Amino acid sequence: MDFTIQNTLIPVHHGYETVDVQIRDRRIAAISPGLEAAGTIVDGRNKLLLPGFVNAHTHSSEMWQRGIIPPVPLELWLAELYDFVPLDPEQIYLSALGTGVETLLSGGTSVVDHLVLIPGQEMETIAATVRAYREIGIRAFVGPLIQDESLSAGIPSGANQHNHEPYVRSTQETLALLQDAVRTFHCPEEGIHLLPAPTGIQLCSDALFAGCIELSDRHNLCRHTHLLETRAQQMLAQEKYGCSGVEHLKRIGFLGSRTSLAHCVWLNDADIGFLAETRSTVVHNPLSNLRLGSGIAPILKYRQAGVNLAFGCDGAASNDSQDLLEAIKMGTILHNVTDSDYHHWITPRQAVEIAALGGATGLGMADQLGSLTVGKQADLVLYDLTNLSLLPRTDPIGLLILGRPIQAVDSIWVRGERIASDGKVTTIDLDQLRRNLFDRSQWTANRQSATVNHLEARYRSVMNLPTQKISF
Amino acid sequence: MDFTIQNTLIPVHHGYETVDVQIRDRRIAAISPGLEAAGTIVDGRNKLLLPGFVNAHTHSSEMWQRGIIPPVPLELWLAELYDFVPLDPEQIYLSALGTGVETLLSGGTSVVDHLVLIPGQEMETIAATVRAYREIGIRAFVGPLIQDESLSAGIPSGANQHNHEPYVRSTQETLALLQDAVRTFHCPEEGIHLLPAPTGIQLCSDALFAGCIELSDRHNLCRHTHLLETRAQQMLAQEKYGCSGVEHLKRIGFLGSRTSLAHCVWLNDADIGFLAETRSTVVHNPLSNLRLGSGIAPILKYRQAGVNLAFGCDGAASNDSQDLLEAIKMGTILHNVTDSDYHHWITPRQAVEIAALGGATGLGMADQLGSLTVGKQADLVLYDLTNLSLLPRTDPIGLLILGRPIQAVDSIWVRGERIASDGKVTTIDLDQLRRNLFDRSQWTANRQSATVNHLEARYRSVMNLPTQKISF
Repeated sequence: MDFTIQNTLIPVHHGYETVDVQIRDRRIAAISPGLEAAGTIVDGRNKLLLPGFVNAHTHSSEMWQRGIIPPVPLELWLAELYDFVPLDPEQIYLSALGTGVETLLSGGTSVVDHLVLIPGQEMETIAATVRAYREIGIRAFVGPLIQDESLSAGIPSGANQHNHEPYVRSTQETLALLQDAVRTFHCPEEGIHLLPAPTGIQLCSDALFAGCIELSDRHNLCRHTHLLETRAQQMLAQEKYGCSGVEHLKRIGFLGSRTSLAHCVWLNDADIGFLAETRSTVVHNPLSNLRLGSGIAPILKYRQAGVNLAFGCDGAASNDSQDLLEAIKMGTILHNVTDSDYHHWITPRQAVEIAALGGATGLGMADQLGSLTVGKQADLVLYDLTNLSLLPRTDPIGLLILGRPIQAVDSIWVRGERIASDGKVTTIDLDQLRRNLFDRSQWTANRQSATVNHLEARYRSVMNLPTQKISF
Repeated sequence: MDFTIQNTLIPVHHGYETVDVQIRDRRIAAISPGLEAAGTIVDGRNKLLLPGFVNAHTHSSEMWQRGIIPPVPLELWLAELYDFVPLDPEQIYLSALGTGVETLLSGGTSVVDHLVLIPGQEMETIAATVRAYREIGIRAFVGPLIQDESLSAGIPSGANQHNHEPYVRSTQETLALLQDAVRTFHCPEEGIHLLPAPTGIQLCSDALFAGCIELSDRHNLCRHTHLLETRAQQMLAQEKYGCSGVEHLKRIGFLGSRTSLAHCVWLNDADIGFLAETRSTVVHNPLSNLRLGSGIAPILKYRQAGVNLAFGCDGAASNDSQDLLEAIKMGTILHNVTDSDYHHWITPRQAVEIAALGGATGLGMADQLGSLTVGKQADLVLYDLTNLSLLPRTDPIGLLILGRPIQAVDSIWVRGERIASDGKVTTIDLDQLRRNLFDRSQWTANRQSATVNHLEARYRSVMNLPTQKISF
């Protein structure tokens, strides 16, 4: 279906203009005042049209554990997460729907789902996720989260030797599974992309990385991984490789213009140079970095070095939401405390560019997405500027990025299809989703994680924390 | 009117219970399962009842400039703010309504409004603000923002001498005005409290502080001020007093258990000791501290020293919202990056205690507000746990504090009066407020502040920033 959005505000160089925007054959066909009406007319008065943003890193099934994991660092948080991970593909389907809805209603039209797989039901997990994203109509980049080492290997050994249990699946089985998933589900022309996405150097062998590189080169797929999220991972990389994790990934050929790297908190100046040189993308997840105490990623340094950036929510158990505008706001203002020269601080317009074009660039789609450009695919979001949270009227983009917009999205198009209007996602039954999420969960507090109890003493010792232990 | 809230979830030691809560004669009269119904029945099923939070520091009229001031540090931000400050009491009324609505719908039942006064219409400014808060029914602590030195005096001199224009009003006139405001508007039994609230050491003489202390002692009023928000203020205090700003305030007798201090970013260990010793309250405003690049207040150190804490949104032009839950979330997770021992990190339940009881304590009302305690005044908020943003069901307080609740407030009582139900504030016409805010404003970008242009070179020089200048 085609659309003409009439009299909408769009940002132009240093200001705003009121224009009509035509969507034809899934693409932005024209942007100009006074266009002839074609297709469905949409009233754009008192509204702001922006390119859709990219939620460039999340883990959808974490939604089942949002709000429940106590304040602990990543290594212990992961232990608890996996103790209670959902094991039913129907749950995976529901949390993908929830992740999609929250991403859309906070300005995101694409989501990168670094998807935790149910052991033994890996293909079913991916199928359930893809089904959810297809139903809802969001553009999805699904990266099955793979590893070939067991969780305890992700904590540095320090002075001691540790033997870790072998992982449940061999490297070759995992790569075969991934190949199978690509063959079955990768369908970019319908908005479903598969990504080889090893979880990270902390839990993956070089053989697994090599297999992912080979697969992504063969099928022209983007690559995705976590990188140096915590100080413990920085220490582990030195133990494992004798060099920084970034340098190692560069050596084995994982970096590149089709590679996006979640977190990148613990990088040195040489590492930053490697990212710029290889045109890799850093996905900044400010909320989980704070929530898990991982640190503040040196985002202003990345900008100065010319490294491409994108924003992500990260999984809902470490955020604990999927509100992309919140992640963008925090990723914008957080860094002001890291550099006293405000000329380096991120402006709201720069934040929009990171969220839209930066995200698209990291997914190899900068020529197709990420800006209001005639010929690009119509992934667009229309914001209602008469919403109380965007009043009084000042600078619309300033209000959107620095404020706290509450249900300010009016309409959404993905691949030219309108999937939300009047502030509601129209492709699924939201009340039914709420009922399903409600019925499959219960209020709780103080659950106990056996694995945290098992790992905590070792973690505290390696990280030089006092050895006394308190229970949660 | 009396109420019985039936079958609502409340937090109890380490868990939750389902109870009935009776509100009688403006107070919490009973909390227990199976109470006899009295007054209006409220269905509390699938809802969480919490004490109302305190938005312990804001400036309501800044709402007119939210989203518009570029990313600059406080000293330049202030210069721009005052170049475009609203000058019509009707605007002040509207922004106080907006501030009240946003505070309420994000869990706040009390607001501390450090109110910027229109020169020459000071009493009209206060009257308009009080009128708004009375209409809406929120409990309000109005601290007319006073100073007796001109804005440029707030920037350190460095090696140079600077002469500053005298302030528009004399110290004695200002104190007389404040006395008049207290006589006219202070009415705690109706939920309107006045606070002597000098803007801060950077713009106030000791005589002004002394007058405020005298007035607050005479009328048993709480006191409020900004304190060491920026590094520039820390430098200025040394120039002005030869000691830290905290030490100076202690010497002149401004600190104490009825004193709340906004920001407290640049304090040393001795300063922290002074705050603990005097039982002063720190109001943490994490969002404006980040937005203005002021720094990260050492909140975990305050907790360890036993300093009482509260959360504030700060004015909407430096936040740029009035969503108290957002400020609480950021004030909770931000500090995890400042201390690697997660045993010190703030838990969601501790955050609730800071937001409710900590706020009440800083306003001298800990015996009246801030907890679900029989006999306390009924300032209560009921959250709808079937809201998508609070699903799936896990730990309700974890979801509320660490998540991103979107319109999750169902009902609000202040002083036992129900002022919101079904997620809507019922005391004012919200559509009319939106129309008024819309009609009195316009979309804009790139306005130019003459005062910023005037002050910037001096600011950059004193703060040792490179001297090249870019325009916004």
